[in-house]
Amino acid sequence: MRILVTGAGGFVGRALVGQLGEVHEVIALDLSCDGLPGAIEGDIADPAVRAEATADPVDAIVHLATIPGGAAEADPEAGWRTNMDASFGLIQGAARHGNRPRVLFASSIAVFGDPLPAKVDDATPLRPKMVYGAHKAMIEQWVATLTRRGAIEGLSLRLPGIVARPRAPSGMISAFMSDVFHSLKARQPFVSPVSPEATLWLMSVDRIVGNIRHALESELVADEPHAVTLPAVRTAMADLAREICRQAEADPALVSYRPQPAVEAGFGRQPPLETPRAEAMGFGNDGTLAALVTRALERIGEGL
Amino acid sequence: MRILVTGAGGFVGRALVGQLGEVHEVIALDLSCDGLPGAIEGDIADPAVRAEATADPVDAIVHLATIPGGAAEADPEAGWRTNMDASFGLIQGAARHGNRPRVLFASSIAVFGDPLPAKVDDATPLRPKMVYGAHKAMIEQWVATLTRRGAIEGLSLRLPGIVARPRAPSGMISAFMSDVFHSLKARQPFVSPVSPEATLWLMSVDRIVGNIRHALESELVADEPHAVTLPAVRTAMADLAREICRQAEADPALVSYRPQPAVEAGFGRQPPLETPRAEAMGFGNDGTLAALVTRALERIGEGL
Repeated sequence: MRILVTGAGGFVGRALVGQLGEVHEVIALDLSCDGLPGAIEGDIADPAVRAEATADPVDAIVHLATIPGGAAEADPEAGWRTNMDASFGLIQGAARHGNRPRVLFASSIAVFGDPLPAKVDDATPLRPKMVYGAHKAMIEQWVATLTRRGAIEGLSLRLPGIVARPRAPSGMISAFMSDVFHSLKARQPFVSPVSPEATLWLMSVDRIVGNIRHALESELVADEPHAVTLPAVRTAMADLAREICRQAEADPALVSYRPQPAVEAGFGRQPPLETPRAEAMGFGNDGTLAALVTRALERIGEGL
Repeated sequence: MRILVTGAGGFVGRALVGQLGEVHEVIALDLSCDGLPGAIEGDIADPAVRAEATADPVDAIVHLATIPGGAAEADPEAGWRTNMDASFGLIQGAARHGNRPRVLFASSIAVFGDPLPAKVDDATPLRPKMVYGAHKAMIEQWVATLTRRGAIEGLSLRLPGIVARPRAPSGMISAFMSDVFHSLKARQPFVSPVSPEATLWLMSVDRIVGNIRHALESELVADEPHAVTLPAVRTAMADLAREICRQAEADPALVSYRPQPAVEAGFGRQPPLETPRAEAMGFGNDGTLAALVTRALERIGEGL
């Protein structure tokens, strides 16, 4: 398959391109793609960059590029250009060849907004509150419409928190979910912006790469609403920190808690999650908290 | 109240501005606003035009301007610029004053797509199939998000077919719903592109103006999903034509049927419609088919 990956220079993108490159022809696209051979470096908000990326037909797009939560809040206009206009233009450019490409859109649990209901499942309505979450909900609708029309074969995947992202500033309010891995692996103090009881939905980068590959390589059954919430491991912050300390042999006393109400409300109140649709389609979570922590710590060991 | 009306030079816009102008300060905005004093003439897709329209705070926006069904299908890029980017920019411009303006967004029953389920009610999922319907569904989501955030006091109103629009080409595939009034009033032949059994949801322009005034002037109870399907009169095409002939004293033999499958599928299969939410909020339909036809024919009598 010929696969265009946007956001290829990012955390998930690099891991994905590394795996896909072994069996597929990959067109990597990002602002910066250091070390990715043959990549297109440019801004998807630039029509010329999109035109270059979609000049020839692709069998599939994995559309990861996004202006994330905090950055979209800070600059809603820039967020709109990249998350809305560029997504539209990119898919339009690929679909015009008429070969009905598969389009996997990286959506987010931010589409559910906050506060979340007592349980989230496949019937939970989309009520985003963050700018970013609204962008994701809207492009989900567009991907679904184009799929109904037969222009693309689309599926939106709602990603939970992916760990452990690199420490570099990413504009993500949820960065603490990854920072806890980095700090404790390095035996440094970690101050949690959510309470010990805060509950999180998490997935390792290896598992999300596996899920995206599954979505690329398996038969997709066209099914409304052409969007699916991925399974996640649900953990309390205290349990997560304890498991990281155990596996990384770090002193649990390095962990302290200074909850910030906004972070707690937005990211620390994730209720029980039921994802039967995703599971029926073959998507999975990391299985256990221990397995998730092991995978996440291994990636840090690779210097990422 | 200081009220900005986009699409003010259009069919619904003119009727609305005429009524609002008697009690409110109205800023009319459209590409062409012949005969509307003090109007801003310009394209809402032009940032400078939006900046002019929102330079000072407004208490409310009635956002009617749109690239309609057929035109958006023919040019999806132009549709995106006007229906998506301009809607975003316009609301952003008004909200930045911090006075939490009321935003009434003219959405459409096109958000439900086709084929429609056996019944449409307040729980029917949004599954647009036309480009235009997807645009409406997406901006509904954006209006709802901004309302949740407290930036605006938003409500999307899903309009049924409004009759009788002028005969001028409007880019609307549904123009036949209005043309039947014009033709029979003029005692000219009318060839229906839908079958006699085709069922339609209709509202007179007077009734939609009344509903929009109600949404402007009454207390809005913040309620998810911040969008509401308006009540309509449901009629079979044959019953509609017969009632127009009766009131206009036209020969029923002027009416013939040459159904086009695409028009029938998109506009002629409108099932029973239940709108308890809208009714609880004080919105209403024309009451009877006879009343709807009377109001629509009166408007044609005014030379519109």
